[in-house]
Amino acid sequence: MNRLRTILLFFGIGIPSLLSAQDFYTQEQRDKWMAKAETNKPKLTEQEKKPVQLVKLEADDKAFQGWKATPAGSVDQLYQQAFKKQSGVVIDFGEHLTGYYTFTMKESANVLDGPLRFKMTFAEVPGELATPFDPYTGGLTRAWLQDEIITVMELPATITIPRRMAFRYLKIDLLAGSGNFDFKITDMSFKAVTAVTNVPVQLAANTDPMIKKVDAVGQATLKECMQTVYEDGPKRDRRLWIGDLYLESLANNYSFKDHELTKRCLYLIAGLSRTDGYLNANAFENPKPHAQAGAPFLFEYSLLFNAALKEYFIATKDSEFVLDLWPVAKRQMDNISKHLDDNGLFNVNAAQKDGWWIFVDWRDGLDKQASLQGIMIFTMKETLTLAKLLGKDKEVSQLNGLIDKMTKAAKTRLYDKKTGLFVSGASKQVSYASQAWMIMSGVASKAEAQKAMKAIAGYDNVVKPGTPYLYHYYIEALIKCGLTQEAKASVIDYWGGMVNKGADTFWEAYDPDNDKLSPYNFFPINSYCHAWSCTPVYFIRKHPEIFQGP
Amino acid sequence: MNRLRTILLFFGIGIPSLLSAQDFYTQEQRDKWMAKAETNKPKLTEQEKKPVQLVKLEADDKAFQGWKATPAGSVDQLYQQAFKKQSGVVIDFGEHLTGYYTFTMKESANVLDGPLRFKMTFAEVPGELATPFDPYTGGLTRAWLQDEIITVMELPATITIPRRMAFRYLKIDLLAGSGNFDFKITDMSFKAVTAVTNVPVQLAANTDPMIKKVDAVGQATLKECMQTVYEDGPKRDRRLWIGDLYLESLANNYSFKDHELTKRCLYLIAGLSRTDGYLNANAFENPKPHAQAGAPFLFEYSLLFNAALKEYFIATKDSEFVLDLWPVAKRQMDNISKHLDDNGLFNVNAAQKDGWWIFVDWRDGLDKQASLQGIMIFTMKETLTLAKLLGKDKEVSQLNGLIDKMTKAAKTRLYDKKTGLFVSGASKQVSYASQAWMIMSGVASKAEAQKAMKAIAGYDNVVKPGTPYLYHYYIEALIKCGLTQEAKASVIDYWGGMVNKGADTFWEAYDPDNDKLSPYNFFPINSYCHAWSCTPVYFIRKHPEIFQGP
Repeated sequence: MNRLRTILLFFGIGIPSLLSAQDFYTQEQRDKWMAKAETNKPKLTEQEKKPVQLVKLEADDKAFQGWKATPAGSVDQLYQQAFKKQSGVVIDFGEHLTGYYTFTMKESANVLDGPLRFKMTFAEVPGELATPFDPYTGGLTRAWLQDEIITVMELPATITIPRRMAFRYLKIDLLAGSGNFDFKITDMSFKAVTAVTNVPVQLAANTDPMIKKVDAVGQATLKECMQTVYEDGPKRDRRLWIGDLYLESLANNYSFKDHELTKRCLYLIAGLSRTDGYLNANAFENPKPHAQAGAPFLFEYSLLFNAALKEYFIATKDSEFVLDLWPVAKRQMDNISKHLDDNGLFNVNAAQKDGWWIFVDWRDGLDKQASLQGIMIFTMKETLTLAKLLGKDKEVSQLNGLIDKMTKAAKTRLYDKKTGLFVSGASKQVSYASQAWMIMSGVASKAEAQKAMKAIAGYDNVVKPGTPYLYHYYIEALIKCGLTQEAKASVIDYWGGMVNKGADTFWEAYDPDNDKLSPYNFFPINSYCHAWSCTPVYFIRKHPEIFQGP
Repeated sequence: MNRLRTILLFFGIGIPSLLSAQDFYTQEQRDKWMAKAETNKPKLTEQEKKPVQLVKLEADDKAFQGWKATPAGSVDQLYQQAFKKQSGVVIDFGEHLTGYYTFTMKESANVLDGPLRFKMTFAEVPGELATPFDPYTGGLTRAWLQDEIITVMELPATITIPRRMAFRYLKIDLLAGSGNFDFKITDMSFKAVTAVTNVPVQLAANTDPMIKKVDAVGQATLKECMQTVYEDGPKRDRRLWIGDLYLESLANNYSFKDHELTKRCLYLIAGLSRTDGYLNANAFENPKPHAQAGAPFLFEYSLLFNAALKEYFIATKDSEFVLDLWPVAKRQMDNISKHLDDNGLFNVNAAQKDGWWIFVDWRDGLDKQASLQGIMIFTMKETLTLAKLLGKDKEVSQLNGLIDKMTKAAKTRLYDKKTGLFVSGASKQVSYASQAWMIMSGVASKAEAQKAMKAIAGYDNVVKPGTPYLYHYYIEALIKCGLTQEAKASVIDYWGGMVNKGADTFWEAYDPDNDKLSPYNFFPINSYCHAWSCTPVYFIRKHPEIFQGP
């Protein structure tokens, strides 16, 4: 399409505006999808939460990011004493919460004769409170950091901060106040919100104890991210992304089973697709649902939409809905052959030059060729499976040939028989990402897959996953090739590692060897409750037999 | 009373709690006054104001406080261009306003993908914007400074800052925002509020041109301070003080004539008086009217209540109201003899030791003995005048003897016949304050008064006024002793000086030789629209003949 445009423009031939403006789906169709998205918008459940204790931040080399929060008294202690001397207090709500904070202030000595200025910092982890935000060095807007400056003009006052917060810890600093009086802070409460309404069935009693903990933290993560859309993170970016939607809906299919939210989100993504029918990678809900205009096309996410749709069908058998969106799934496949070389190998550079965003993982230096080759094959297979279930396989029969060709190309060009490892790019880079996707896609036979997964564990110069997002596919690949005990061990090692480091919810980025890893160059801006990290809930509940026993 | 308490305690005799708790006026009486205060609460008039231009702050040695605001484009220019490059813009609303700011934000490029963090600084004068607030060195709470940090989560958004602001200039700084998009700020408006409903009669056409300007700025000052009480300043402290109430009601009596507000405020002060019947110096309205518990007793303000009541009666002839509060006025006189020496000279030190606050003026080093002697005599005379008008003179007949005794003491001990100047304290300090109050009180004969006022102008080691509050009494004294041309010249020199320096409203503190004079050690915290500075409106309209001609 872009090449065509270039050629036409080169010859001075304008592209008729009708052509470029033509809507692949029609406005009428979109309106219907958007109306259904609205119909399926959940009414959030609200729960009033109270703080559980005061804590003190202590530097500790052994603690996550070097900081731990230790008990420092009861909340009543805060309420009953004048506040000034308590400025800097840290309040612990005992769990990760998403919603709205309310507190009351009243005078304790004399009469307020001037306003009060506060900084209220809401944090998901202790290190976020212990690290000064300014001067800010992060790569995303500093405004995501949850410190609000508020002026209180009169007392008593009951104040609700209008911004929705995601946090466990709250630090209150009095920035300014007259010297002639003091006051008390009291009656703190938090209106916690989530779209979750169901309670998952309990795990078998003989489930591994650490697996039980991982499951609980995974559920908390998923619950916090399930709002009026599947958010990527309730602190940041509070946005629907296809990649997170896919993993969250997998976990939800096997736990809360609040399926309306999945339906809503898939409708939103479809309704907000580009005019050419390809999907925008994310969506915003307010003030009315809209895609991020001008954002790059995230190729692999558009493909994973199909996998999410297939899994939704398997979980619900809701063929009416899935048939409604089948044309969207079918359309995404039209991109597969756009940047293949003659042998059927995906050309990452060409795609990127075309403005496509290739993601795979937050990890500097990761070569993405093999991963994309795998993702493309995997999603073609998922699409075919869905097509068969819907009786639509003839509509996408061309995928069979593409799968064969691309599998052959991968086997020939991306597999190092000597080491038994899949490699990527000109440098023949070895990464967890490449192994995972070559296995997920079925390029690797079961034997090759097991060999690769065992070899990589002892391989020195390997690019490890930077996020639980990629770790998910790594675990899925282990299970797929029958390395179930390795899968269990990895879940315990990786997600259990977060649990051991005090995680209340699972983190956006986690490298066991680097607590301060941040995709944004400043760890406090990381999301510490992130959708794509919740998937042990899915593994554990889909394959309970793997996760039993100590 | 306090001496009695000491004696009783010395002998181990407890004061019955009934005695100390006894209410001088009865709760029933207070409730009636408070109900009437509520009945007379004005409904504020609201007016929608729009910004008039953009301005640039420029350092200029000749400008007030070294900063001037020069035109820098139209508001449309701000509205039509993307904001990011305009961060730091200063918007000029063209006049001093008190109320609520609203603006709209919308996207101009791509889609907002993260929150925005702004600092919005509202300033009465340019220097306030050009001076960093932090690290803060002022003596009042920094929270009075009108910089609000706000986070905007979504666009478009129409935002009203809930805090009431008093300002002319608004500076908008974008503190944080994602790099991928831009936005526009548009539709700024300001809901300006005041209790004023009437329009004063125009000054005679032959009024001095500068006097016309001073009158206009004085009216603006008074209008801004007239809210649901007479505030001392709409930026700070937004509070009813007896001293400001007196001067504001004087000006109002001769201009807007919105008398209900005076009635309300006098009722509030009476209803919130101390149990012993003496007046608290100030009152807060919210959440329900209350005095500042624990604040020191401001002796002279309690006395000036009587002067305000008398002037109100003269302006309105509302004898029912004034008789209602007559017992309060009468009670204030009971303090007169508490700290007099045997000769009838007021002992400032003794009063201060007793916890009394003696104010007179914001001016370090001012000796207050002579001023207080004068204020006491002046307010006794005002009280007697009121008593006669009400037919109540027998109830305060003891004041005649006190006035004679204290006048004699003043004449003997506070007058330097050689220089013709009144002096104060052990150091025999010469100040404008002492001259003004010795004249206001009638201690000085007309001839002595004229001599003193002429002498002081050429006197070297003199303590000058620090505020328009004291300047008011200085002008009043000049007029009283017939130095009307000097009065006019002083109004032109002092208030006209502020006009020449760009005042939209008159300032809390003004020293022609020191633009940065601050009672609080940091000039941006000063109030630049201050009630007690509005009184040229009173002089000019009470004595129009003085202020005519160029």
